[in-house]
This record gives sequence, structure tokens and C-alpha cells, in this order.
Amino acid sequence: MDRNPDMPDISSMPEPEAPGQRAVVLLSGGLDSSTVTAYASSKGWKIVAVSFDYGQNHPTELEAARIQGARQEVVEHIIAHVDLRPVGGSALVGSAPVPKDRDGETMAEDIPITYVPARNAIFLAYGVAVAEARGLTHLFIGANSVDYSGYPDCRPGFLQSFQRTAALATKTGVEGHPVHIHAPLLSLSKADIVRLASRLGVDLAHTWTCYDPIDGHPCGHCDACQLRAKGFAEAGVIDPLQ
Amino acid sequence: MDRNPDMPDISSMPEPEAPGQRAVVLLSGGLDSSTVTAYASSKGWKIVAVSFDYGQNHPTELEAARIQGARQEVVEHIIAHVDLRPVGGSALVGSAPVPKDRDGETMAEDIPITYVPARNAIFLAYGVAVAEARGLTHLFIGANSVDYSGYPDCRPGFLQSFQRTAALATKTGVEGHPVHIHAPLLSLSKADIVRLASRLGVDLAHTWTCYDPIDGHPCGHCDACQLRAKGFAEAGVIDPLQ
Repeated sequence: MDRNPDMPDISSMPEPEAPGQRAVVLLSGGLDSSTVTAYASSKGWKIVAVSFDYGQNHPTELEAARIQGARQEVVEHIIAHVDLRPVGGSALVGSAPVPKDRDGETMAEDIPITYVPARNAIFLAYGVAVAEARGLTHLFIGANSVDYSGYPDCRPGFLQSFQRTAALATKTGVEGHPVHIHAPLLSLSKADIVRLASRLGVDLAHTWTCYDPIDGHPCGHCDACQLRAKGFAEAGVIDPLQ
Repeated sequence: MDRNPDMPDISSMPEPEAPGQRAVVLLSGGLDSSTVTAYASSKGWKIVAVSFDYGQNHPTELEAARIQGARQEVVEHIIAHVDLRPVGGSALVGSAPVPKDRDGETMAEDIPITYVPARNAIFLAYGVAVAEARGLTHLFIGANSVDYSGYPDCRPGFLQSFQRTAALATKTGVEGHPVHIHAPLLSLSKADIVRLASRLGVDLAHTWTCYDPIDGHPCGHCDACQLRAKGFAEAGVIDPLQ
């Protein structure tokens, strides 16, 4: 991990400063964001979840987010319409085919066609706005970069830089109370995340991962399905979606 | 201006590196963004305009953006639906009253209720995404901070920091071809901007400024109307909206 000593440590999981303190969590409905929601809850945070209806080809992910929000008893769940289709340039919001059956080395080298340009920058900025409007100073994101560093906007350097920028972007930030960005899964492998999710009792049957489902079922062959399968196998946990 | 020598200079207006080169412009339909669009065009840039339907209370601004895009013959005009209403915390997307008849000193001190949390961070991130998906490396924004520094996300420090973050957020950025952010109106007064707009032949009758119109007409009393009136008066230009 490209840890810069001048940069804030964003990979730890802080405890609330006061009982009942709220924090924003970006909840996509995937395994990582569902786990980080449960992880923050387990530490005592009350969750303001933000999920995005961004015109994704497969709404199953958003449905999983709704279910996770309800089961995890978030105190507020914002489903934000942020249409990324006009951006273009990604298989996730367009018609380009999703690559299948790539080996781990190819995945690690490439930034794949499923990358949505600057998506996390847009979503984080939105999350910071939600935090600021509610006077909240902590935001959690399920980004992790160990098994899958193909997306630039999941990398630690980006997240650290974003936090600095966010402090300058907001009224609360310039007044000395910036929103702190936390990515406590950043250094965990997918297997570690599966273990953590199991321990926390996350409803794994409603975590959505696949980039290219067939009749509502995971394809099993896209990068995301393959990494999920590897994570479950290494953790020795049966994937209820299989 | 808090110019940091380590930070990129974002307040200059560059020329295209090749004839017909495209650049992204954030075009709200206000005076500043309409002027920066014309300014970039005058230097030879072909414009990909991005305007936001963000649930603003008054759609007149978006209509002005459409008219500016058409009159200025942009090569692509994206109207992006990015709903900021769930964010809350601003008079521009909510029901809080817009302050009226404030003096210049009060305006300069306060971050007003019309501030939309982190709005420019969200819009810039979206603009960077549009640029990246098209292989473009330049983005223009009409931010200016001389007459009106009340919004943190219009300040030079924020814009410079955002540029650094954007370079880390994108595939093209990490590959060494980041999107450069330009705010060439940053150091201009409102009067300077009115003069520039006049010289460039911007259709000033279709630049929208007011935060709180009455029956489709500018109120004349909100901060934005007052600054506009002062700018036109100092520039000796008749405002066609009056």
C-alpha cells in the first residue's frame, strides 16, 4: 500500500466519539459495502446509508442495497439518482461486453472496461455533501485494494487525496470540522472480508457482486464473480448465491 | 489568492494543443459559466458542455444553459440528472428562504444558506468522468473568487486540490494523462467578467443569475442579483435582464 506519512490513515475503523453518533456509509449492495455497514454498526455507529441509482444495467445491486439497509436498520437510507449513463465509457452503464474468465494476473494489470470513470470520486463527493448537510464528520466506504487494485478510484492514494480535497470543498471543512473518510476494508483480502461478514452476521444472500447476471443469477465468470468465489473458497464459507 | 507554488496554476486560459481539440466546460447557464464557454471557444476549443439538472428550485437556469449551448454551438451538450435534493441543507434545493438585501461585507463573511454542500466537488467529478470517457484532458469551470468567496468550493485552494485528486481518481490520470482543471475567471471581478462577456458577444439576456426569481423575473435582491447588478454597473454595460 502506498502509505504516505503526510497523508491521513484512512484504513482504520474508528469508534464513535459519542453514543448514537451518525456516520454516512456508501452502500452499493455489494459484499464490501454491506460488510463495512455492518462493521461500522458493530462499533456503535448509527448509519446514514447512501446508495446510487446511477443507471446501472442491472438493478439487482440496488435492490440488494435496499434489503441491506432495511435488515441492518440504518437510521436513514438515501437512494440518490445520479445518472452516469451520459458519461459513457463503461460496460456497467453501456452495451460493451463484460470480460469473462480472465486470470488473476490479467485482472491485476488492467483497468477493465467495467471501470466507470471517476465513479468513486462522484459518489464520495455526494456522500460528503450528505454528511455536511447533516453535520456529520465521518464517512465509510467499502473500498479495498488488495485482491483488486484495477480501479484507480479504490486505491489508498486516491482516497487520501480525496479526503484532503473534501476538507476544502465544504463549509464544515474550512471551518475546521472536515468529513473524515474511512475505508476500513482497504487492507483486507476478499477472504478476510468474507470472514468479517460472516462473523458480523451479514445476510450474504443479499449481497450482489456480479457485473453481468443471467436471468437474475450471477454469471460466475466476470472478474467480480471470480474474486468473490475465490474469497469464499479461501474463507471456507459457502456462498449462499451459488 | 492563496497561490501555493507546489500547486498547479489553474487560473490561466490555455490554448488547444491541436486544432479542433475538445474540452469539457461546466455550463450552469449563469453569467460566469456562459462567459467561460465563450472564452474557451474564442481560443479555439471545441466545447463538450455539461449542465446539471440537480433538482434546483428554479429551472430557468437550466433553460439558459440549453440556450447558451445551442447559441455557442457546443459540439456535445450533456444534461446530467444528478439529484441533489436528498442532500438537503441548502435554500437552492429546499424550502429555506433565500436571504435578501445583504450588504457586501456580510456576503463576504458568511457562507450563505444558498451554498449547496460540496456541489462543485460533485459537478467537477462528473465533468472529469465525462472528460475521461472521451479521452479529453482539459476541463473549464467558471468559478471566480474575487467578488464572492463565500462558497468554499469556488476557492483556488479547493480547485487546485481537486485537480490533484482527479489525477488519482481516473485511469487516464494514473496513466500520466490527467484532466487539467482551468478556472480562467478565478481572478476576475464581476465587472471584468461582464466586460469579457460583452467583448465575446455572449447573449447576456440568456444568462441566469437569480437565486429566487418572481414570476420568472430576477428578484433583484438576493446576493447573486446584487453582485450581478454591481458588476454590470461597474462595467458600464446595460443588463438586458433589467
